[in-house]
Amino acid sequence: MTKKKFFNLAIVGLGNIGLNLYKHLIKNKKSIVEKNNVHFDIKYVSAKNKKKNRGISIPRKKWLQSYLDVPKLNDVDIVIELIGGAEGPAKKLVFESIRKKKHVVTANKSLISKYGDQLALLAEKNKVNIEFEAAVAGGIPIIRTLKEGLVANKTKKIYGILNGTSNFILTNMDKMNVSFSKVLNKAKKLGYAESNPKSDLNGDDVRSKVQILSSLAFNCFINKKNINQEGINFIDEIDIKNANKLGYKIKHIGLSEISEGKLIQRVNPCLIKKDSRLSNVNGVLNAVIVEGEPIGKSILQGEGAGAGPTTSALVSDICSILRGNLKYPFSVSHKKRKKINSIDISNQWFSNYIRLDVLDKKGVLSSITKIMSKNKISVKRLIQDPLKRKKYASIIIISHKAKNKNIEKCIDELHKKNFVINRPKFLRIEEI
Amino acid sequence: MTKKKFFNLAIVGLGNIGLNLYKHLIKNKKSIVEKNNVHFDIKYVSAKNKKKNRGISIPRKKWLQSYLDVPKLNDVDIVIELIGGAEGPAKKLVFESIRKKKHVVTANKSLISKYGDQLALLAEKNKVNIEFEAAVAGGIPIIRTLKEGLVANKTKKIYGILNGTSNFILTNMDKMNVSFSKVLNKAKKLGYAESNPKSDLNGDDVRSKVQILSSLAFNCFINKKNINQEGINFIDEIDIKNANKLGYKIKHIGLSEISEGKLIQRVNPCLIKKDSRLSNVNGVLNAVIVEGEPIGKSILQGEGAGAGPTTSALVSDICSILRGNLKYPFSVSHKKRKKINSIDISNQWFSNYIRLDVLDKKGVLSSITKIMSKNKISVKRLIQDPLKRKKYASIIIISHKAKNKNIEKCIDELHKKNFVINRPKFLRIEEI
Repeated sequence: MTKKKFFNLAIVGLGNIGLNLYKHLIKNKKSIVEKNNVHFDIKYVSAKNKKKNRGISIPRKKWLQSYLDVPKLNDVDIVIELIGGAEGPAKKLVFESIRKKKHVVTANKSLISKYGDQLALLAEKNKVNIEFEAAVAGGIPIIRTLKEGLVANKTKKIYGILNGTSNFILTNMDKMNVSFSKVLNKAKKLGYAESNPKSDLNGDDVRSKVQILSSLAFNCFINKKNINQEGINFIDEIDIKNANKLGYKIKHIGLSEISEGKLIQRVNPCLIKKDSRLSNVNGVLNAVIVEGEPIGKSILQGEGAGAGPTTSALVSDICSILRGNLKYPFSVSHKKRKKINSIDISNQWFSNYIRLDVLDKKGVLSSITKIMSKNKISVKRLIQDPLKRKKYASIIIISHKAKNKNIEKCIDELHKKNFVINRPKFLRIEEI
Repeated sequence: MTKKKFFNLAIVGLGNIGLNLYKHLIKNKKSIVEKNNVHFDIKYVSAKNKKKNRGISIPRKKWLQSYLDVPKLNDVDIVIELIGGAEGPAKKLVFESIRKKKHVVTANKSLISKYGDQLALLAEKNKVNIEFEAAVAGGIPIIRTLKEGLVANKTKKIYGILNGTSNFILTNMDKMNVSFSKVLNKAKKLGYAESNPKSDLNGDDVRSKVQILSSLAFNCFINKKNINQEGINFIDEIDIKNANKLGYKIKHIGLSEISEGKLIQRVNPCLIKKDSRLSNVNGVLNAVIVEGEPIGKSILQGEGAGAGPTTSALVSDICSILRGNLKYPFSVSHKKRKKINSIDISNQWFSNYIRLDVLDKKGVLSSITKIMSKNKISVKRLIQDPLKRKKYASIIIISHKAKNKNIEKCIDELHKKNFVINRPKFLRIEEI
């Protein structure tokens, strides 16, 4: 229906994802052409290691000497960046390609969360698209859904489970009742955790995704300040067990919302009720919940990463460009994007789960409750269990809502007491 | 980024949905213009009853004498049809509007499931869009997701809970342990069921939605044949109770899949395992699951109907047109749509839940099992409970997988036996 055209693609980066995309585009060329009524060709590819055995033969003429050639080539219309990382080659390639009026498709969440605002402005000036569906929850078309399917809505809150590795670990700690490190090893063996899974486990990965989702949901610039970020490495199996007994699951949640005109962004493990929609999202699955007007609550769930879902996301971006669906990268034009101030977590109110391992002696409980009361934290529920080692006890407290800064101060004070064995654990209870 | 243009809209039908859309477009005009970089105006409205108090004042100049004026007017670009029904005014308006090269947005599932193929061809010829996101699960942008977000995928199966009224009834029969008719009355009072809810309860509504989803998912023409359609009015509270005991929930499911090159379409209540994703979709919520390659399983959930979600869907359609995102109504062009033959349910294999109310006398059980065995149905599980009225018993059977025609024949034969009190109930067990 649109005028027939021809697009040349260049894929830069031929790792697991790049190779899967290459094969998918070759295999499904006919159906992609039919659906978009536009022809295309993978004109060039580029990779660090050209000699690696990839199990397929890529014609020699497609290979570029260097990825730096891509922006200079006149016969490239769409650049697919699969190098990764916020700096270096990926940054250079994407900025240069857009300057040379080439569309860009990328799965690079670090790059977008760091330079997304500049890139969006540059793309707008050069009248090209930069698309990044694969950067957030590959198997869930959340970016396209925010920009198109839910375009009518005023979003209030967007949150979910955004990292498959950490969700796999929490789910399996729960299911098999084993420690964090044991499950991490299992995840590595199964390919669900990278050899260096740091950014998946410390919340870096989810933080980038939350920043990108916030900008899209609230039409604001990417906000890097005041984000409360916690990973999952401090969670003990006993906490998961306790949560279960109390009717909760522990999940690693990324959340973004507007409260009284201010932006709140959080990335942390927390307790959520067992009947919460997210508590049943297990294994490597991701899920995103959008709350807005007039739609109410919309939930999307699917695989978060892996070659298949990521390819699905990349191809949907490519198709959007092929169809000539020219769009602002963040839904509205640069000059219409707002600067929304953010607030940090200190004055936010939460119920908390607190676990104290203490010497089982007289006066301990009264001392604990005194410190809590001094910090304006009141007890909703308290369970004391003897520990295996004699003379020790574990105290589990569910608090009423309290300011985050008060609970943190309270934990510090409790930690200083000589009857407290380890640093007390606390986890917020999210009402989602 | 696209060239600035101006679109005139005409809304035909100002019931609950039409009025909500009118207000939403007026209130959110600025943000819609910003997001699409195109101006628009609601130029005309039309409704059967012009004098009804709608709580807002619509300028007199916007009112048309008759909806039949719409296609003739040169200053209308997008027609929003909210009359409803597959025939009569709605059909006339939509066909005529497209002939006159106007884009159409509609929430009319009956019209699309009946005349969608003709309308799509006509729209293609006239180079206009016909969009119908609101026809299927308003709060779930499933149509846009199939056409864009999941465009890369080869769908194998699409299914879900597609009617809020029947899901509300089944959920509440379960929760409150009351009869179908009691919950139906409650649903009517709460506005979750229309005064004449026939098409919601007998599966007509879901059938239309399944037909539309099949066409989009499998790039085929709408297939009206061989659809197994059952409503929920024959479900007793005791069946829901029994299902619970056995680890299942009863849900009304619409399903479409390709099996050995043939299309299967089903609309029926069935038992699904409690840990199935759909078993927790309660109340008026809808959910759709798409299984495809390379994405795996993608799940979307949200409110199915009501003014808010429907408005969200209508506005996303309007925005798609405003952005100039001209698309084939069913994803590919008319000549690329396939004719896929369908098969009926008779030779499909299912495990079944069977409930027999019988006279509690000697030889009954052996007679039942004999009939079952004759029809090649073997018992996986059997529970016999005495009924309150003496001399009667209830027998619950879970069968191994059997051909549907055999189970139906078996039920007929059992019904003829004089020790069987009522027609035996049977419900399929879906492995979803």
